[in-house]
Formats: sequence, C-alpha cells, structure tokens
Amino acid sequence: MPLNSDPNCIFCKIVAGQIPSTQVHRDESVMAFNDIRPLAPTHILVIPLEHVTFVNQTRAEDEKLIGHMVRVGGSVAQKAGIEKSGYRISINQGRDAGQELDHLHLHVLGGRPLGRSA
Amino acid sequence: MPLNSDPNCIFCKIVAGQIPSTQVHRDESVMAFNDIRPLAPTHILVIPLEHVTFVNQTRAEDEKLIGHMVRVGGSVAQKAGIEKSGYRISINQGRDAGQELDHLHLHVLGGRPLGRSA
Repeated sequence: MPLNSDPNCIFCKIVAGQIPSTQVHRDESVMAFNDIRPLAPTHILVIPLEHVTFVNQTRAEDEKLIGHMVRVGGSVAQKAGIEKSGYRISINQGRDAGQELDHLHLHVLGGRPLGRSA
Repeated sequence: MPLNSDPNCIFCKIVAGQIPSTQVHRDESVMAFNDIRPLAPTHILVIPLEHVTFVNQTRAEDEKLIGHMVRVGGSVAQKAGIEKSGYRISINQGRDAGQELDHLHLHVLGGRPLGRSA
C-alpha cells in the first residue's frame, strides 16, 4: 500500500484493491472511479492515492497534487462525454456539505442539468 | 493589469479594480471576494489573477495554481467561520453546471446545510 495509508479508510482500501471499484483513471498520484451511489448520470470520485484528509490540513507542497486532482476531474468528464454539456467538480468539507469520508476526494457530476451549486 | 488579462472579462476587471468587489483575500496569484448574488450565507469566489479559462484548457504547469485556489478556498472558509459547520468548494464547467463566466473560478459555499452536490 502507498505511504500515508489509513487501514480503516474505505478509500485507502479502494486504492489498495481490497475493495473493488469501477476505475476510470489511475496514475502515480491519484485515481478516479464511479461513485457507487450516483447523484447524476455521471458521478465520478477523484482521490489521491495517499491518505490526505481535509483541505485545511493540507500544506503548500500539496497544491500540485490538489490541482492535479481537479485536472483529472476535467479529464474524466471529457472521457465520460460530458465536457460539452457541462459538469461540476465539488469538494465537500464537513457536516453542512454532507462530507462522509475524511480521505480527500472530489466529485465530478454531470449528464443532466445540475441544480444550483448550493 | 496582470498578464493574460481579457479586457472584456468581468473577473479581470475585478482583479484590476475597475469593478469594485468585497475582497477577502489577495496574494500574488489569486484573489477571493464575496459573490454579489450569494446562494448561501457565505458565498465567496476564488479566481486566479490571470485570465485562465476552462479546467480542460489548463496545462500541467497550472496545477500548483489550481491547488492553491482550492487551499485559499479552505482558508477563506475558515476566516468566514464556516470551517467547523462545513462548506463546499465547487467549480462549474459548462451549461449543465450553470457556469456564467469563462474566467476560472471556484465557489466556496456554507453557513447553512447545503443540498446534495448535484
């Protein structure tokens, strides 16, 4: 397993292949897979391979990784055929946003008109 | 005006101070200001000073800038007092997501329970 893995984290288990996922992208620092409870026709999660947690616990040296996650989000949206119709990339932090897992992840949503972002 | 400015872009005019804004953060590469049509009690926009456009038109060398935008989003959420209650960072791309301006920007939303991210 990669560095900074949390043995109790579902996303770390997905990274390690201990929990199956429908993977749509993987490179040296991030992976992307379909959300098992999709909120839209396309709903992909992008996560770092390492167990990075909250945005406000990241450091300046993580910026390239976070920016890469966003660009991979755009890339998988393109691959999914929703670049032209439009898509949303979102990161939920904490209770009011409905965050469920602390391993940093972004949602890529599209395939239908989305509501207002709040 | 900074490099890569678009004279017809509202956000470039905000960067240049030609259109007023309620600025909550500014550094050498990004700025953040309150959305004039807030969708939630806290609704802040984070933009690069340069006229970067769509996620899928950015290059690998923009990843640090994009990651910095996300981290500034977390920082302004903290300053706004919504870090503990929770917040959403979102980037809308294209029609289905309701994107209105092509200058890359992320929304920081919070201050009340937010809907599902789609």
